[in-house]
Order: sequence, then C-alpha cells, then structure tokens
Amino acid sequence: MSSPSLDEMISALKCMPGVGQKSAQRMALHLLERDQQGAKRIADAITVALDRVRHCSRCRNFSDADLCTVCEDSSREQNTICVVETPADVLAVESSGAYRGRYFVLLGRLSPLDGYGPGQLGLEDLERQLDDGGIDEIILATSATVEGDITAQYIADFAARRGVATSRLARGIPLGGELEFVDGGTLSRALAGRQKFE
Amino acid sequence: MSSPSLDEMISALKCMPGVGQKSAQRMALHLLERDQQGAKRIADAITVALDRVRHCSRCRNFSDADLCTVCEDSSREQNTICVVETPADVLAVESSGAYRGRYFVLLGRLSPLDGYGPGQLGLEDLERQLDDGGIDEIILATSATVEGDITAQYIADFAARRGVATSRLARGIPLGGELEFVDGGTLSRALAGRQKFE
Repeated sequence: MSSPSLDEMISALKCMPGVGQKSAQRMALHLLERDQQGAKRIADAITVALDRVRHCSRCRNFSDADLCTVCEDSSREQNTICVVETPADVLAVESSGAYRGRYFVLLGRLSPLDGYGPGQLGLEDLERQLDDGGIDEIILATSATVEGDITAQYIADFAARRGVATSRLARGIPLGGELEFVDGGTLSRALAGRQKFE
Repeated sequence: MSSPSLDEMISALKCMPGVGQKSAQRMALHLLERDQQGAKRIADAITVALDRVRHCSRCRNFSDADLCTVCEDSSREQNTICVVETPADVLAVESSGAYRGRYFVLLGRLSPLDGYGPGQLGLEDLERQLDDGGIDEIILATSATVEGDITAQYIADFAARRGVATSRLARGIPLGGELEFVDGGTLSRALAGRQKFE
C-alpha cells in the first residue's frame, strides 16, 4: 500500500476474531474515507476500556469500578446467583430479560489438564459468599459440555453441604452448544423451566 | 452490561462496516480477555493513521508524506498511469502483481447529480500531469458501470487531445461489478488483455 500507517492499521485490525486481510482493508478504508469520527471513537473507546476495565471483586465479571453495575444494582434479587462461564454468557442471559438476580462468572470451567482448578475459577470465593448467607438458590448455567457438567456438579456439591438449593437451565439448549450463541427466547424458556440439580 | 467502558467499546466497534451487535461483542470480549496487546495495537494504529494519513499530492491515494510510497518509488514505470476510482482499487490492482506503473486515484466517478464533477475528481490535476509530458499511456481502470464508463470517456477525450494513448482493462471483469472485489488472477489477465480505448 502507499501509506505505512494505513498498512499498520490494516494489519492491526486483523487482531480481531473473524477479520482477515480483505475485511481489515475494507474496515480501514471505510473508517479513513467515510467515518473518521467513528475511527477516533473506536480508538478512544479501546484505550479507555483497556485502562478502566477490570474484574468485579464480587462476581468476577468485567467492571469499571470495584463492584460492577449489576452487583451494585440493589433492585436486583440478592438471594439468587447465576453461575456462568464467561462475560459473554452474562450478556446472553441478560438479553433474555428473564433473570433479575446476581451473577458469578467463572472465567473458565473445571479442566485440571488445562490448569483450570477451583482456585482459577474463584470457587473458594463463591463458597465464602455462600457462607456469608443470604443466598437461597444457585442457578448453574455452565455450558452443556462434559467440563461444564463437571463444574456444575462440583458447585452443586459444596452448595448442598451449606443447604443452598441448586438448579440448572432446562434442557432446551442445543447439546454441546455454547451458551453465548443461544437466542434470548430459548434462554428465557430454559430459565423458566429450570430443574432441581441432582 | 456490567461495565460502561465495555458498553462504549462494543458500541464504537459497530462503526465498522459489516459489524453488528453480536460481532462487536465478540470482538470486544476477545480483545479484553485474550488479546489486550492487540487491542492496544489497534487503538494506536488508528490514532497514528488518523494523524498521519493524507492524500498524495500527485496521485491522490492515501499517503503518510506529501508523496505516497508508490509515487516515490523510482523503480516503477513513470510513463504509465493507471486511473482508478478508490484506494481499495489500487490495493486490488497491486495484488495482481501485474502492474508496475503509477496510479491516479479519482476518489469517486463522474456523477454531476451527486456533485462529482471533474474538479472533485482532480481531473484538472491529471490534465496538468499530461501537459508536463513523459506519459505514454493511461490505463482506464474505472468500474464497469455507467458512471465508470462516462468517467473513462471523459479522460480518454482529454488524453487524445494531447496525443496520449489510452487503454482499458479487458472485459473479463464481471459486468456491474466493483473492481475492489475482483481476484488478483482475473485482474492480471484483464491487465494483459487491455484494449485501445475508442
């Protein structure tokens, strides 16, 4: 290309998932030719996010402050925790509009071979929250995979020892699928038809 | 979402063409969770590009300096100018590897109703370059649309008045198609089989 800065911009955009050479070119040229304000907005937003975004000290989801906006929202039910694997899963459940409780984000699932034990998933922290009391139910919304099931079982065990009820999303989720990609309607039905965990 | 900065990052990413809510979420979460270095690289590259990229004073393509790297490259044939509509078209022709001359980028095509006259396309500038001499051939690589044809005809007319030969890419380009999306092999054949413009 005729401009080294444009070359670098195209090649940097390829850091994003699903963006190859052609898409990166199209994006870079579009931003420079037709939407310089949008380009500045993207650069600023990324810089601010990198600077500010950390993990919520209570639910481990992304947050700007020590507590995330969901944990700080007192209008949400404080006695129910929905345990999910990733921040994307939180977005998916929120988009169903069917859940008004809190979350706990594992940022992974139990997989000792990959180095994901209870410590990496913050499970001691979750146990401490159960010990503090006030939690009536844990909804296990881990993914419908072997590791997801093992993770759910592990959490159900320590919840049972503390007399906290556990449930899981109704099977309606496509088997082997990732929570992130399920549509809001299906998730809404899955939340309503949740079953006691045994 | 739980973090306003992340919300803004997702919504800013939607400024890019072909990026909707779901893709923007996936990109933002990927960058924050797995590639913070890539995120910083994107923000920096966009900022640098916005600051540095301007139009080459000779060919109107994107450039970091007064002259772009193609115009400054003395190893390229100086007696042939390929006239294209957009910087993306330059990228497409370059990817064919079959062209070693210079470019002239119109940044549009003649379309009086949309306010694109010869002035907006820099055509006085191109006429001046022909008057300066040293140009043996103009390759008219405007798109295969009505406006593209009219633009090519307009340029061919003033080139003919100065005795400069004109040619155009061989028809092999899909009719009504945009140059930007043609693959390198097809473009290479179209360059080799170019016809005298009448």
